[in-house]
Amino acid sequence: MQLFFKYNWMVREDWFRWCEELSEEELLQNRTGGMGSILHTLFHIIDVEWSWIRILQGKTDFQESFDDYNSLEKVRQLASAFHAEVESFVNQWDDSMEERLLHNTLEDGRIETHTWGEIVRHTIAHEIHHIGQLSIWAREIGRAPVSANFIRRGLSSALQASADGHSELKR
Amino acid sequence: MQLFFKYNWMVREDWFRWCEELSEEELLQNRTGGMGSILHTLFHIIDVEWSWIRILQGKTDFQESFDDYNSLEKVRQLASAFHAEVESFVNQWDDSMEERLLHNTLEDGRIETHTWGEIVRHTIAHEIHHIGQLSIWAREIGRAPVSANFIRRGLSSALQASADGHSELKR
Repeated sequence: MQLFFKYNWMVREDWFRWCEELSEEELLQNRTGGMGSILHTLFHIIDVEWSWIRILQGKTDFQESFDDYNSLEKVRQLASAFHAEVESFVNQWDDSMEERLLHNTLEDGRIETHTWGEIVRHTIAHEIHHIGQLSIWAREIGRAPVSANFIRRGLSSALQASADGHSELKR
Repeated sequence: MQLFFKYNWMVREDWFRWCEELSEEELLQNRTGGMGSILHTLFHIIDVEWSWIRILQGKTDFQESFDDYNSLEKVRQLASAFHAEVESFVNQWDDSMEERLLHNTLEDGRIETHTWGEIVRHTIAHEIHHIGQLSIWAREIGRAPVSANFIRRGLSSALQASADGHSELKR
């Protein structure tokens, strides 16, 4: 589980760097699908990851609007502000949490029940899905997208353990 | 790990059904990014999943060309032909396989080493990424894409065990 999150964070950082080559106009330009622009989609990824991790911890959710984060710098700052808490939650994940239940109240008052395992997988898949959308928009503006490869990023628990001593990732 | 594969197979089946509403021309129409068309991208997803699973098992890889699978029916038949073997491999996965090594010879003769854990995560992320691309093309032709939600699909090991007795998915 941790390795998928690490993958997402590496890919996300690659996209932030990729975005540096674009004008603010290109980053905010209205596009079809996703959240409607490159930057809004990145904001949404960060917002959704953080929100689910907050909900799992029984904490208050994030209610900000993209209107307040409409520059690459602001979105990066937001990602950075949220990251420590998300990473701390992810690093202390263990498989015994898999079947804990979350009773989540929807806006219409209905209560949905999910396992924690469903929520973390949802969060992981959510980011990968939206990154796939960015890759189409990249081609549409004539640029090569960031690699979506999971391999060749050093993301194995074996390599990890020997490469930087992060034995908490070894499972 | 199994639950991510199950997610991908459910979403893939949803996309096959979604494709039934489109003409062959729309399915094969040249689009920007991905594998260049909706159907070729679905073919590629199936090809890549199967190829990696074959490679992990030390079996021969698939060398067919999309030219021989350029209809929805043919791609579905291919998916169906491959599925039993892929599913069998996935169902017998356990975490002790995580750090087994794959020495993979590239076309230029170089040998890359990956862990099996990297390969299965790569395969999972590969499909989710390409499905994200399809969702953009769907909007571009004025149609709602298939939901990418992991939640609300009954994909929890707890629910799974009680819902259909597939206790091999319980970890």
